[in-house]
Amino acid sequence: MADPSRAEIGERHVALLNEQIFAILTTVRADGLLSSNPVCYVWDGANIKVSTLKSRMKYRNLQRDPRVCFCVQSFANPLSYLEVRGTATLADDPQRAFAREQYMRGMGEEPPADLDPPDAERAVITIHPRQVSAPRIYGGRFHGLYEK
Amino acid sequence: MADPSRAEIGERHVALLNEQIFAILTTVRADGLLSSNPVCYVWDGANIKVSTLKSRMKYRNLQRDPRVCFCVQSFANPLSYLEVRGTATLADDPQRAFAREQYMRGMGEEPPADLDPPDAERAVITIHPRQVSAPRIYGGRFHGLYEK
Repeated sequence: MADPSRAEIGERHVALLNEQIFAILTTVRADGLLSSNPVCYVWDGANIKVSTLKSRMKYRNLQRDPRVCFCVQSFANPLSYLEVRGTATLADDPQRAFAREQYMRGMGEEPPADLDPPDAERAVITIHPRQVSAPRIYGGRFHGLYEK
Repeated sequence: MADPSRAEIGERHVALLNEQIFAILTTVRADGLLSSNPVCYVWDGANIKVSTLKSRMKYRNLQRDPRVCFCVQSFANPLSYLEVRGTATLADDPQRAFAREQYMRGMGEEPPADLDPPDAERAVITIHPRQVSAPRIYGGRFHGLYEK
């Protein structure tokens, strides 16, 4: 059964998700401050997923507070962007299969053997959209009309 | 007297702030969700400032909760970015002088007379950094070492 609190990422956003490699992911730190940084990601047609090391602050932030915002902006057309507000769940990636998939998508080649520090553990952040927002552009001018 | 909770934006970040026009600004919504979207900005050598309409959600969010994150990423070299975590203060911009300054910086020309809806009010968001974070890149590889 569909989750009524879940927002869907519409067809019109797929081109941007496929075009870009980078997005800005924001989480909430233990000290209450907001923290944003660029991430690579995979859009698999149903979900946005992000690989991270378990040692990263974003992983520890999401363990404590699942709120997340994912914002992807076209570098070619910066007025084109997609904002996904919601929560995230975390899963282990013990064989680094997802990390490899994300690296291959972004870099077009196998990740180097020393991509991560020895003994580093990888995890998968899956974003659960509650609100999806994107500007509608009319005649090149951003009129601030949002969907949802 | 210097504010001990204030972090400084170092010289090594100035080139990126001057190169880019867009950044991603994140605020907290009344429903608790995080909200990010692209903004233009002005770095005046001391402060990062962002023009907004008072009708925008980000303005209303910051009136209620001053926490903000400003993340600027180089489009030319996406591994180069700067994250500024902190709070924001709001000031009126009744003559739209700052809005004009920001538009001129981004677009290189005077804003059109109909940039904003009639009777729309402009404000200036000033970001007060508490933590400044940026990756150090060694040999083109991001090793996850942060300052502060």
